[in-house]
Amino acid sequence: MKDDKYYMNIALQQAEIAAENGEVPVGSLLLLEDGTELISSNAPISLHDASAHAEMRVIRQACTVTNNYRLNGSTLYVTLEPCTMCAGAIVHARIKRVVYGASDPKTGAVESLYQILSDDRLNHQPEISGGVMAEQCGDLLKRFFRSRRKKR
Amino acid sequence: MKDDKYYMNIALQQAEIAAENGEVPVGSLLLLEDGTELISSNAPISLHDASAHAEMRVIRQACTVTNNYRLNGSTLYVTLEPCTMCAGAIVHARIKRVVYGASDPKTGAVESLYQILSDDRLNHQPEISGGVMAEQCGDLLKRFFRSRRKKR
Repeated sequence: MKDDKYYMNIALQQAEIAAENGEVPVGSLLLLEDGTELISSNAPISLHDASAHAEMRVIRQACTVTNNYRLNGSTLYVTLEPCTMCAGAIVHARIKRVVYGASDPKTGAVESLYQILSDDRLNHQPEISGGVMAEQCGDLLKRFFRSRRKKR
Repeated sequence: MKDDKYYMNIALQQAEIAAENGEVPVGSLLLLEDGTELISSNAPISLHDASAHAEMRVIRQACTVTNNYRLNGSTLYVTLEPCTMCAGAIVHARIKRVVYGASDPKTGAVESLYQILSDDRLNHQPEISGGVMAEQCGDLLKRFFRSRRKKR
């Protein structure tokens, strides 16, 4: 059955790809209204692009595929709580629902530092489901940072 | 003399280009540490990209040109107060100074709705100069929305 865990597992595979490339392991999947599934991984260093978070990449990919700057009816899966940049893009793109894994107490902008996706002063509020496979998503990040500290 | 007004005037010309393309008139200029000047205009509709605000476009352009996801020492000029998305990207890119024109009471994330660029919980705080040529920058926006309402 294609439920939230099914899609989050695919996002998690994308996060593992990011880790293999030396990037902070975050992955995403965007499920379009017509059932199309798009995937992306975090890649600012490899792409030389400060904005190349997994969410931003998959949103931009979806805009290109659909020829539309609005992604009405879509659901975004991402392994880590989005930051202010990605939360802003989610609002601009009118994404219907956001499902994320681990919380990000340092830069999270959905529940942690800010609550941008539920701010009714902005002109769109997606549905939010946090904590889906949070342990697996968080463990991957912890392992990555632990191994990076060892290398230094 | 190449002062803030000089650069903001160029950003304003970019905003006018956006308006000519039917986009909300916002323009930007990014002055790199080595003196390189890059320009961009707001273009989400024409580019089919929810993230294609003037600031995001010029930041991504600069990352490509410099082959670096960090833009240390750079100054961003933009005719309108950045939103949460663009403020997030400014922090990620480590932009040194942000100069903007008109305030944006609806979506501004520097002084209006949020103060993301001065949030010391995030790992970078650029210098901020708001209100530079605010009247001209704001007038262009007002004229654009007035003419769009008439057309409807």
